[in-house]
Amino acid sequence: ARDGPRVRPIHGIVRAMYGNAIILAPGAFRSDHAKTAHGLVRGSERFAILGVVDADAAGEDAGTVLDGQPRGIPIFATLNLAISALDPRPDTCIIGIATGGGRLPAELRALLLEAAREGLHIVNGLHEYASDDAQIASAAAATGAKIFDVRKPQPKNELHFWSGQIANVRAPRIAVLGTDCALGKRTTGRLLVEACRGAGLGAEMIYTGQTGWMQGGKYGFILDSVVNDFVSGEMEHAIVTCDAEASPDIIFIEGQSALRNPSGPCGAELVVSGQARGVILQHAPGRIDFKGHAGWKIPPIEEEIELLRLYGARVLAVTLNHDRLEPAALIEVQKKLAGRLGIPVVRPLEAGLAEIVPTIRAFIEYEASRKKT
Amino acid sequence: ARDGPRVRPIHGIVRAMYGNAIILAPGAFRSDHAKTAHGLVRGSERFAILGVVDADAAGEDAGTVLDGQPRGIPIFATLNLAISALDPRPDTCIIGIATGGGRLPAELRALLLEAAREGLHIVNGLHEYASDDAQIASAAAATGAKIFDVRKPQPKNELHFWSGQIANVRAPRIAVLGTDCALGKRTTGRLLVEACRGAGLGAEMIYTGQTGWMQGGKYGFILDSVVNDFVSGEMEHAIVTCDAEASPDIIFIEGQSALRNPSGPCGAELVVSGQARGVILQHAPGRIDFKGHAGWKIPPIEEEIELLRLYGARVLAVTLNHDRLEPAALIEVQKKLAGRLGIPVVRPLEAGLAEIVPTIRAFIEYEASRKKT
Repeated sequence: ARDGPRVRPIHGIVRAMYGNAIILAPGAFRSDHAKTAHGLVRGSERFAILGVVDADAAGEDAGTVLDGQPRGIPIFATLNLAISALDPRPDTCIIGIATGGGRLPAELRALLLEAAREGLHIVNGLHEYASDDAQIASAAAATGAKIFDVRKPQPKNELHFWSGQIANVRAPRIAVLGTDCALGKRTTGRLLVEACRGAGLGAEMIYTGQTGWMQGGKYGFILDSVVNDFVSGEMEHAIVTCDAEASPDIIFIEGQSALRNPSGPCGAELVVSGQARGVILQHAPGRIDFKGHAGWKIPPIEEEIELLRLYGARVLAVTLNHDRLEPAALIEVQKKLAGRLGIPVVRPLEAGLAEIVPTIRAFIEYEASRKKT
Repeated sequence: ARDGPRVRPIHGIVRAMYGNAIILAPGAFRSDHAKTAHGLVRGSERFAILGVVDADAAGEDAGTVLDGQPRGIPIFATLNLAISALDPRPDTCIIGIATGGGRLPAELRALLLEAAREGLHIVNGLHEYASDDAQIASAAAATGAKIFDVRKPQPKNELHFWSGQIANVRAPRIAVLGTDCALGKRTTGRLLVEACRGAGLGAEMIYTGQTGWMQGGKYGFILDSVVNDFVSGEMEHAIVTCDAEASPDIIFIEGQSALRNPSGPCGAELVVSGQARGVILQHAPGRIDFKGHAGWKIPPIEEEIELLRLYGARVLAVTLNHDRLEPAALIEVQKKLAGRLGIPVVRPLEAGLAEIVPTIRAFIEYEASRKKT
């Protein structure tokens, strides 16, 4: 069993969820609507990702399309072709795209119905629940396929209020925040964990989104699906549990949205309720407006750093996303920002994160000495 | 009919909800656990408040106990005594206290069962639902009493995502925030609306808590009961609807918690998603720690003002809560703070809010001129 009692269940379903999965991203794998698909292609400890369904990119390797690195994950034009070609046969399909308003469009619905008829379990992170669709539900019941609507809010009796126990957590916390949504916070978090572990540090990440859970996150919760009153308590509970069970040297917390994203500000919770005293700030210098909200300008990064300082957290390093910038322009911005801010500014996808491990080590030592005094 | 289509329903129940109500606050009316009861005694346009049940304060007038101003609202030792004595007979009972973890303790449960048997509708804002209690539910069904669990999250198809429409709202917004929870934000908001209306300004308040709804708020939502993803959209929707229907000169938005309250930070939503460019900041200078969290210090008010400035909002005035301070000491603090901050600092409960109406008027004019240019 790859699963253990430390894994936080979502609606009590975790034990059933390890499997061989295919990602549904019809017409979208090349676009940034396929954020979940991209995360799963980059890596998942919860599912073996066997293939992707997207007619627009069929015939290619998903890794090659994503970032030029082949990963042995073929893209198929149809679900039927994928099931015929793959060995082992997939047992699960995962919706890998975000849709307008989180709804289930007709094309995706048809794919889910086909999957249910084929007996594939369905993992759905959209706001619209697949289990509410009578046809999909009855097809699944007939074949024994299970439907996991990941975003279904948990019942209140499974949720926690904030208690202040966070004060007793041994491992210091670093929040991985960003100046916008959808710019790589989760991926940077994964790379930070990898880099720290590679350097001999015990590192864990608290997931706060559905993709983090799909990728196999052991500790965390799905922030935007929790009734607001329980967000701080669920975060504290995830951190306390992680600290007690895994005894890491450092805990990263995956951020959501951005402190000043008008469509839903987020981040203060991590610093204030999760008491993250360090921040790694993901930034896309090529973006002018908040994603999806033309005319709503992303404010200067210096202000973001000052805002975080007032919340009680220090920005330890800035990690850059290359969106809309040529490689040379990105390096130019990197140099300028590093000079202006006086902290490490790095390009995680291009150059990895090994160079900021000493910064993280220094933060851990500083926090330990601060506790003693 | 005092109700109209502009009133936002909670679970479609608003039209049924105007009535003659009694408040249940057993053993607690004198304590600050009875925040909801106190708000309702101060005023409600949704219910006529006929009496309070609390054996510890029985025989007194609820207004006198609250702030020395009799309001003709008697306190009774038992529900039975209240029903016998009151004319008209109450048709509704409202839970007026907050309990640990929002649970329904045995004494309160017994009172609700008695109320249901007497045919009284039940308004419950606790996290634990009265309708989940089989005995209460069946007693209510037998007498025709209705149970309104105000905090039950609304179904997703009734909720809104943030859309950016806020940019088209004509009335400027002022967020009524605080440096802690439970220090009078809602009451200050009501007094602000009153003071503005008294001076001939069209003023509305967006409620964000259950008490605001119980008091008859026409526009708003219950922030802590909304699934997190919809908080910003529900706020925008309430503001947009209020602006379109009531065409006010100024909209106040009731704040919750505090920006840096570790048990659940809140406030950025109002400024960022609700685009409130002005803030009235409620502050209890006598408090050292966040309420209910000993050892978690309330940070300096200057920092709070700077934090809000970085979020894009200007603090227009500070309103003081007298908690733990003698009247003379409060006046002393008021003078010092006014000198230090250079903005009006007032005592709403002691001196009213008429003196900051010119500040609000200047804000409205400034925002109007800013829009033109």
